[in-house]
Amino acid sequence: MSTPRSIAFIGLGIMGLPMAKNLVRAGYSVAGYNLMPEAITRLAEAGGTAAASIADAVKDADTVIVMVPDSPDVQQVLLADDGVFANARPGALVIDMSTIRPDVAREVAQAGAERGFRVLDAPVSGGEAGAVEAKLSIMVGGSEADFAAARPVFDVLGSTPVLVGPSGAGQTVKAANQLIVAGNIQLVAEALVFLEAHGVDTKAGLEVLNGGLAGSTVMTRKTDALRNRDFTPGFRIALHDKDMKIVTQAAREAGVAIPLGALVAQFVGALKAQGHGGLDHSALLKIVEQLSSAEKA
Amino acid sequence: MSTPRSIAFIGLGIMGLPMAKNLVRAGYSVAGYNLMPEAITRLAEAGGTAAASIADAVKDADTVIVMVPDSPDVQQVLLADDGVFANARPGALVIDMSTIRPDVAREVAQAGAERGFRVLDAPVSGGEAGAVEAKLSIMVGGSEADFAAARPVFDVLGSTPVLVGPSGAGQTVKAANQLIVAGNIQLVAEALVFLEAHGVDTKAGLEVLNGGLAGSTVMTRKTDALRNRDFTPGFRIALHDKDMKIVTQAAREAGVAIPLGALVAQFVGALKAQGHGGLDHSALLKIVEQLSSAEKA
Amino acid sequence: MSTPRSIAFIGLGIMGLPMAKNLVRAGYSVAGYNLMPEAITRLAEAGGTAAASIADAVKDADTVIVMVPDSPDVQQVLLADDGVFANARPGALVIDMSTIRPDVAREVAQAGAERGFRVLDAPVSGGEAGAVEAKLSIMVGGSEADFAAARPVFDVLGSTPVLVGPSGAGQTVKAANQLIVAGNIQLVAEALVFLEAHGVDTKAGLEVLNGGLAGSTVMTRKTDALRNRDFTPGFRIALHDKDMKIVTQAAREAGVAIPLGALVAQFVGALKAQGHGGLDHSALLKIVEQLSSAEKA
Amino acid sequence: MSTPRSIAFIGLGIMGLPMAKNLVRAGYSVAGYNLMPEAITRLAEAGGTAAASIADAVKDADTVIVMVPDSPDVQQVLLADDGVFANARPGALVIDMSTIRPDVAREVAQAGAERGFRVLDAPVSGGEAGAVEAKLSIMVGGSEADFAAARPVFDVLGSTPVLVGPSGAGQTVKAANQLIVAGNIQLVAEALVFLEAHGVDTKAGLEVLNGGLAGSTVMTRKTDALRNRDFTPGFRIALHDKDMKIVTQAAREAGVAIPLGALVAQFVGALKAQGHGGLDHSALLKIVEQLSSAEKA
Repeated sequence: MSTPRSIAFIGLGIMGLPMAKNLVRAGYSVAGYNLMPEAITRLAEAGGTAAASIADAVKDADTVIVMVPDSPDVQQVLLADDGVFANARPGALVIDMSTIRPDVAREVAQAGAERGFRVLDAPVSGGEAGAVEAKLSIMVGGSEADFAAARPVFDVLGSTPVLVGPSGAGQTVKAANQLIVAGNIQLVAEALVFLEAHGVDTKAGLEVLNGGLAGSTVMTRKTDALRNRDFTPGFRIALHDKDMKIVTQAAREAGVAIPLGALVAQFVGALKAQGHGGLDHSALLKIVEQLSSAEKA
Repeated sequence: MSTPRSIAFIGLGIMGLPMAKNLVRAGYSVAGYNLMPEAITRLAEAGGTAAASIADAVKDADTVIVMVPDSPDVQQVLLADDGVFANARPGALVIDMSTIRPDVAREVAQAGAERGFRVLDAPVSGGEAGAVEAKLSIMVGGSEADFAAARPVFDVLGSTPVLVGPSGAGQTVKAANQLIVAGNIQLVAEALVFLEAHGVDTKAGLEVLNGGLAGSTVMTRKTDALRNRDFTPGFRIALHDKDMKIVTQAAREAGVAIPLGALVAQFVGALKAQGHGGLDHSALLKIVEQLSSAEKA
Repeated sequence: MSTPRSIAFIGLGIMGLPMAKNLVRAGYSVAGYNLMPEAITRLAEAGGTAAASIADAVKDADTVIVMVPDSPDVQQVLLADDGVFANARPGALVIDMSTIRPDVAREVAQAGAERGFRVLDAPVSGGEAGAVEAKLSIMVGGSEADFAAARPVFDVLGSTPVLVGPSGAGQTVKAANQLIVAGNIQLVAEALVFLEAHGVDTKAGLEVLNGGLAGSTVMTRKTDALRNRDFTPGFRIALHDKDMKIVTQAAREAGVAIPLGALVAQFVGALKAQGHGGLDHSALLKIVEQLSSAEKA
Repeated sequence: MSTPRSIAFIGLGIMGLPMAKNLVRAGYSVAGYNLMPEAITRLAEAGGTAAASIADAVKDADTVIVMVPDSPDVQQVLLADDGVFANARPGALVIDMSTIRPDVAREVAQAGAERGFRVLDAPVSGGEAGAVEAKLSIMVGGSEADFAAARPVFDVLGSTPVLVGPSGAGQTVKAANQLIVAGNIQLVAEALVFLEAHGVDTKAGLEVLNGGLAGSTVMTRKTDALRNRDFTPGFRIALHDKDMKIVTQAAREAGVAIPLGALVAQFVGALKAQGHGGLDHSALLKIVEQLSSAEKA
């Protein structure tokens, strides 16, 4: 199995562009394509190649990376007549790093395999900062051989690529991630408003909580923002809302009850409905305040 | 302000006895009293003094520590005719380290102050291991002067004593701790059953989750027990149920909504009702399994 | 067993005064007492007797009715040195029609029995209108003999007195009533905001729903108020909040999970915390609106 | 506008067959088609006409009624090359009485209108008994003219056809119906287990509750089944689970929070996951029991 050399990168958004640049920097030949051409130009300025279409991008690539917003985008990019599977070289490694529905990930992996492609789902966590600093966590679904083949690319993009199961498993783990993160933020927000209402020194209080069994990365990273009501993203409510829809649906289909997950999904959805889709997900605190005594919170 | 020298320790249970022994070891004179006399004997064997009653224990102490199960126990120990306030030396420092209702903590602090005592509420987290190894987190409510006076004692018992506000604030922070911990366990349990139902490698999957924003001390310490369904305590459901009652009531009285907290309190209560009060709180996983597909979970 | 003739009525508020007047109208001799003397005067004007104290009211009564706001009030009225049990004639029938905690109802019944009184708990539903029009539903806990003895009085006050079990059972049924009512209002509110957001004719829509399995007395009586956002009480959020506390606590003590009840209790508490304690309980709609898209609801 | 005379009926299941027979009985010419031919035979025996295909059924009909299980079935029946729109007479009235997603109802109405058909969505409630006895509640979305044209047919099938808005509105109201019904059953189940745990006479207790503001059609029809744990359907959990998915998704898309609805949807889904999809929806009581003390419930 040869090491990837020539990469097509489809989707050069907030996450995709810095990831593609990191690959250029690591010595790969990267042909990029994006719906909005400006990002293609920026990749070319950084040493990549500007592709005129998906077909153009993938025609010589041994590896194709896809990083687009949602399930229908991935289906379009991979399955359409002018898409990846119809135009890439047989046997190419196709890595979808978007966050999408696990069942769609399985479906496109199957469609790709039928045409001779090796397909991985490999969603990430770590946000824009993780993409820029090459510190993404990468959760991978697919075969061991394909994971091993993709490993050099993953090592450029992040620090902890982990194979968690067959096709779709990466997306399933990402869905679980979003469930836990939303729930943790909500719990810390409930605790914070509770402490404020009792006149507790919340800086000292949350610090001591974070030192014990209640401690979490959410508390470490989000406490200051929560205390200051600074909801600059970070990770947007609108995207987290999409992800909560994925996890509630996938849980339902698997016959798994996620009562806390389903309730916090209501609150994430409520924030989006209130027009706060552009705020950081720590804005769940707003829900707790809305439901609590005005004079105290 | 003089350093504490002579300590009365009321309540020598699973937590209290090792704490009292640590104080003996640190050079304090410790007179212990407990309802069950066996524990008193064990403290005496370790170099403490056996007291015949609360009055006997406190009569020469400059510092009184109370470590009993619940709010009514604290009221009894401090307020009864044969209790601490009626028999201790005026001006003594009274430190209640039990986990009780914040309003009761305020009430007994007030009652103590009226009789010339200096009262702190100082609940702990860290469990039996933390008590034995002197690594308790200590959340303190009261005045800065009294906290400073108690500091040498706290430093013997744990690593991070923090003054979080006036009387009752320690209990409030402990209540918030129990809310977050129960919620986190439930979220990790929902995620784990969800991942199992999808055939994901849960060891690898939870490891990668713990490395990102979903990471928590609960995940670090409880993942193996959750994966193996090993619910040996640790911290018992029956006690966590008592604590969830404290936090839901304190939230209600403060006009704060804790919807996730209230829901997980139902599940902790359900486990206790099912006869699982003696299991570790990680047994919340049982609730998720009961609500999910039998063949998968 | 003789028919009641001479009644002491303690507590002449919004509910108690019209109930006492109905008993006067039915031919009973009614001595009334109330903390605020104005209500006593109004009862006297209607043909009752003004009592100067509880002791004065009960001294010649064969039947004592209590109608006060909350558990501590009932304990005070019945158990205090100047209260009912210390001053009423031995063997008198004592009927507590307040809505209080089931455990307190059992406790005062026990205390009364030890002193030779026959005690019933008999909370009502139907509100001020039901009290004025003598159409209250009455849920009674106690013995069959005492229920039979009280029956003529109940028949004056309402239409459907039902013996539902031993002491405390009346309060337990009332608690279940408040759980179902709060839940039903919340469900209808969720459905209404959902229908509005979809541009449905809500008058026609709720009418057809009320004709089928979704139909309820809440829908029959509250739909217009909900559609018009007219939250004039009716039954106040502040009282319903007290009652939700009773039912959640009683459920917890019995080891019964009430997840929907616990969640709607959060929302009732949220309304009270927001300063809406004086609104009708149909104001739960406000919670649904707060959590939903502003432009639609 | 002419009165319907000749009807094609697609979907002769538990609901469809008795509805089609009622139309035959009322004097209509009814050509029936069903995937399983046995039902077609039974309609023919009752005086209808056996069709060999959808195209055969609709070719002479002025009115087409569709009664199939789920959204994809409706799309298939109406939109496929061998389906209704491709084969029916231009201008025919097409009435979809299935319970499906509101957005799919709007989509097929739009597709039909573009080809010159008049389309109504007209889901029903009342179950098999309502279909047999012609007592269905019918919630209709579409234009006033089309509703008027369909009125004679609706009057044969049920008692209360109501036009609730434009295309999709019928399905939206049906979705709200399923939300309220599931919630009410859960609330009554919580109340019942609560009353049982307290040793209350539940027959008398629920009777008095049903006479007041807590009263509902659910309580009237389901109390005996709930008390006896008789979960013979009735309306199956598997179908209610499909409907809860519809309402949670439609609420999310409209930006409406339905926290109680989302929570009870988890419990309906849990029952299905446990293998209880074939039980009546009153089996929600099982969830309450699972979460409550074993010895009491």
